[in-house]
Amino acid sequence: MRREHQPTLYYNAFGPYAPVMSVEDGDTIVTTTLDARGKDASGEVVAPRGNPLTGPFYVNGAEPGDTLEVRIDKATPNRDEGWTRTVIAKHVVDPSFVPEMPQDRLASWRIDDTRSTATLVSPETALGHPTLQLAPMLGCLGVAPKGKQAISTATSAEHGGNMDYRGFVAGTTWCFPVFEPGALLFTGDGHAVQGDGEIVGTGIEISFDVELTVRVIKAKEIGWPRGESATHIMCAGNARPLDQALQHATTEMLRWLATDYGLDTEAASILLGQCVEYDIGNVFDPAFTVVCKIDKRYLVQA
Amino acid sequence: MRREHQPTLYYNAFGPYAPVMSVEDGDTIVTTTLDARGKDASGEVVAPRGNPLTGPFYVNGAEPGDTLEVRIDKATPNRDEGWTRTVIAKHVVDPSFVPEMPQDRLASWRIDDTRSTATLVSPETALGHPTLQLAPMLGCLGVAPKGKQAISTATSAEHGGNMDYRGFVAGTTWCFPVFEPGALLFTGDGHAVQGDGEIVGTGIEISFDVELTVRVIKAKEIGWPRGESATHIMCAGNARPLDQALQHATTEMLRWLATDYGLDTEAASILLGQCVEYDIGNVFDPAFTVVCKIDKRYLVQA
Amino acid sequence: MRREHQPTLYYNAFGPYAPVMSVEDGDTIVTTTLDARGKDASGEVVAPRGNPLTGPFYVNGAEPGDTLEVRIDKATPNRDEGWTRTVIAKHVVDPSFVPEMPQDRLASWRIDDTRSTATLVSPETALGHPTLQLAPMLGCLGVAPKGKQAISTATSAEHGGNMDYRGFVAGTTWCFPVFEPGALLFTGDGHAVQGDGEIVGTGIEISFDVELTVRVIKAKEIGWPRGESATHIMCAGNARPLDQALQHATTEMLRWLATDYGLDTEAASILLGQCVEYDIGNVFDPAFTVVCKIDKRYLVQA
Amino acid sequence: MRREHQPTLYYNAFGPYAPVMSVEDGDTIVTTTLDARGKDASGEVVAPRGNPLTGPFYVNGAEPGDTLEVRIDKATPNRDEGWTRTVIAKHVVDPSFVPEMPQDRLASWRIDDTRSTATLVSPETALGHPTLQLAPMLGCLGVAPKGKQAISTATSAEHGGNMDYRGFVAGTTWCFPVFEPGALLFTGDGHAVQGDGEIVGTGIEISFDVELTVRVIKAKEIGWPRGESATHIMCAGNARPLDQALQHATTEMLRWLATDYGLDTEAASILLGQCVEYDIGNVFDPAFTVVCKIDKRYLVQA
Repeated sequence: MRREHQPTLYYNAFGPYAPVMSVEDGDTIVTTTLDARGKDASGEVVAPRGNPLTGPFYVNGAEPGDTLEVRIDKATPNRDEGWTRTVIAKHVVDPSFVPEMPQDRLASWRIDDTRSTATLVSPETALGHPTLQLAPMLGCLGVAPKGKQAISTATSAEHGGNMDYRGFVAGTTWCFPVFEPGALLFTGDGHAVQGDGEIVGTGIEISFDVELTVRVIKAKEIGWPRGESATHIMCAGNARPLDQALQHATTEMLRWLATDYGLDTEAASILLGQCVEYDIGNVFDPAFTVVCKIDKRYLVQA
Repeated sequence: MRREHQPTLYYNAFGPYAPVMSVEDGDTIVTTTLDARGKDASGEVVAPRGNPLTGPFYVNGAEPGDTLEVRIDKATPNRDEGWTRTVIAKHVVDPSFVPEMPQDRLASWRIDDTRSTATLVSPETALGHPTLQLAPMLGCLGVAPKGKQAISTATSAEHGGNMDYRGFVAGTTWCFPVFEPGALLFTGDGHAVQGDGEIVGTGIEISFDVELTVRVIKAKEIGWPRGESATHIMCAGNARPLDQALQHATTEMLRWLATDYGLDTEAASILLGQCVEYDIGNVFDPAFTVVCKIDKRYLVQA
Repeated sequence: MRREHQPTLYYNAFGPYAPVMSVEDGDTIVTTTLDARGKDASGEVVAPRGNPLTGPFYVNGAEPGDTLEVRIDKATPNRDEGWTRTVIAKHVVDPSFVPEMPQDRLASWRIDDTRSTATLVSPETALGHPTLQLAPMLGCLGVAPKGKQAISTATSAEHGGNMDYRGFVAGTTWCFPVFEPGALLFTGDGHAVQGDGEIVGTGIEISFDVELTVRVIKAKEIGWPRGESATHIMCAGNARPLDQALQHATTEMLRWLATDYGLDTEAASILLGQCVEYDIGNVFDPAFTVVCKIDKRYLVQA
Repeated sequence: MRREHQPTLYYNAFGPYAPVMSVEDGDTIVTTTLDARGKDASGEVVAPRGNPLTGPFYVNGAEPGDTLEVRIDKATPNRDEGWTRTVIAKHVVDPSFVPEMPQDRLASWRIDDTRSTATLVSPETALGHPTLQLAPMLGCLGVAPKGKQAISTATSAEHGGNMDYRGFVAGTTWCFPVFEPGALLFTGDGHAVQGDGEIVGTGIEISFDVELTVRVIKAKEIGWPRGESATHIMCAGNARPLDQALQHATTEMLRWLATDYGLDTEAASILLGQCVEYDIGNVFDPAFTVVCKIDKRYLVQA
């Protein structure tokens, strides 16, 4: 069932807040998100900056110890102007290079929905006005964290959060561990385009139309967000340094291959050793994101 | 000019050793490499284990402060049996998962050159006997390090080394900073197939036929290995943690885009912010490898 | 003025919760804390495990942008039995050593308040029954975090938190940045004795009698917890890896030396370069703690 | 037996070089070291900068698999002028603070051997001319590394190297794993005074008179440098990030307590959990140093 939600309240943390709407297992939430500075589809600021979130949605039947599955049915920009920062974050370059870096400012991009492109409008640089293919993705997706915590939308953990992974696109399905009754699903921080790592601290920030179909998987505990696309299964680990994020993602994949694909650690290691792919999500936040992926054709083979 | 070298001496470090052959700018070196345990094409152990290297090759005209360009013309397995380890390295998973891990052993793979495949022969696991597409790559490539150091083939630094990056394939061209007269080029550690990170500590280890064409770029200083494929330019950073490897790779890309593509830090940041791709090379060694890439079509555009 | 508070409610996170008591600038809070598993002075479990906190205390006059100063007047065990874990955390040793480690269990210690000692009661090991000098300290001290977050008592950040630093002892004074009206001060997790790093995941865990005198410093913004003992000034940085915690602590010290001691970055660097001391706080939590210290006699000299 | 060596040749790496002198088990080597820029006791530059080393000394009887014990009998400045850098290394502060940092330059210090003090001569800063107590220590101490490597004096590893730990002082004894016949002992990089971490990239750099008594411990393998002072036993771990250096040092201490003090991992954990002390050595080099210490009085008790 399609459940429309027109948000009027936004949170800047993933936390155990009062839900904005209750939905049933199998429902599709049809809603909108603001850009990272709180601007809506009309360009009006309606919430404080810092990745204001739409939600939380209470999913009936979800209990701690369950898993919440979220299929991204739609995630597309809903206005024609987006923005980015203009200088790579200081911690993403060598410390010795930092003194050579210019002052950060804002760049403006025009979104052409018909041609599915984003074109740099300003500032004027040697780059000119490049036009990029849209690749819309959700920077923030997740549930209320464990232990009654409220965790800023500036970072991420087991519950998901601000992972800024290019793989959170329409057509993919993601699972999150449930820590609170109803799971309390949030989303936001849409990017029209974004490079790996979100290294300038933004993608092309813009408001979105979003549709998410939720499903409760009872009595299934997972440790970290898990996803599936047409081609891959994926596990996201969130921590700093990247080494630890990679440990989390890899361990979660080993657990998944064991329980759902019958591959013990040795079999899974032999497979991953030759076929694993790692993607780098956010390297701008306090917690960084690494995604461990395996092509599904190898799993059919197994 | 093609210059054949049949190796009889191998080093287990990148160092300022006496060259095995001198070549001219533009020459193509035609040679072979051993597998990581010192076995040659006939399966005979002819050097001590630990990625024994072929070389060093003295490139006439290369001086400290220059850059050595190396085009990989050929890098293919030259026997029909390869091997891998069977368990992911303990530092690649969560410390709490380590007690669940089995003992490491060796797996054997059959290489079918005609069909360009590798098939798992043993051990017997739930995985059965999967067949993978060959994707041959050089685990070790680089020159003598700076400061008269001799750095083990178990690790990597500015000079290249054991980076285990899937992108060191035939058809790509790589540049290395020259620290010693003649540059002193080495290669080895061929893998028939390998996942990102070389997380079991091996790819499918096998001896290779290798052809490398060298060129000296005078008076050009680079900081880290730089590469070019049909589609991308790439910079490799080597360090631990991954965060620092990523800093090195990103900074090197910024320097490259400034000097060769006319993009100052702001222009380059705007481009990389939306379009950068990061690949993860070795995460098994003391030093880890991150590769910063940008699709060349964006550079044409600029 | 002495303000007694007998706690009946405990939180397992530092967050923007309703205060348990309001106090005035200059008041001394006289209260008790539970041990890490929620046991009180009588050994009864009265709150869920995981460092339950006493507080929050609302300090009248404290506003975001101010600094809250907390003098620890008393922090002493109030019962005669404490406990520790028995095995070093897996992430504190080399991954290759983990398979050699035994199962973790609990150790029991007898506290002798008269002699100011702790004696190991069980388990039986080759260690026998060593007697250690008490060195009571507060594992958790801090205020409500920024951005309305609720951050678990299992970790730490700018607001303080679970830092497990041996320097949080009676006679020292600590300052915290104020993010919420009233600052919302919390404390807990007393340790009778603890080694650097809290590497077994506990000190000798025990309930405490605590007295804290609070003072509001108006319109003074600090970035991280700052402290002063009879001999040193100290800054705590909380992050992972330790390298980043050390960066935070060092930067905070540079800012402090600039604003309060008239030492610009060069003068401060010359001094710290020869005289800085670093202590390692918690290395068990998600966030680690490093303390940057300088002996006050050098500051007199300056 | 006292064996005097007047150096005429210096190396900028720890490597398998031809020895400058052979000594017997039990001999005391009496020699001198240059400062980090190659200046000798008379202030003359006699070797290239970058911590030129005195040695290597071939210790008769030392074979791979043995341990070399080195007692520091004397390590004292032998001229009256030392120097430091003036700005904390950029990677030791928050990346956001780097743009506020001034240009680095050199500071000059006068050494008064009679009063055992160092006084800042220049530059002029708000610091004035502070006088510090001498605390002379050896920045570089170690042997030829494993695997025929030659490792720069700018860093450290299992063989020791440039650890810049304040504990390498006269009266302490240090053990190193032997990787080459004769062990090949080197030393250099004396500091008249130095803060934890060598955070400005130098201590007070100065030439030294050094006396080292060597002893071969046959058939004893250690993993990392181990030391003993009047009060503590100590293990040094060298790696980046600090977390990994701490893992190495802690694991080495666990191995030592097991083999030499009869404490299994549980007993050792209980002891270290309450009594371990960590010191931070070099945080300026590619590899960082952490020292794990335990007061010897606890070992008597055990």
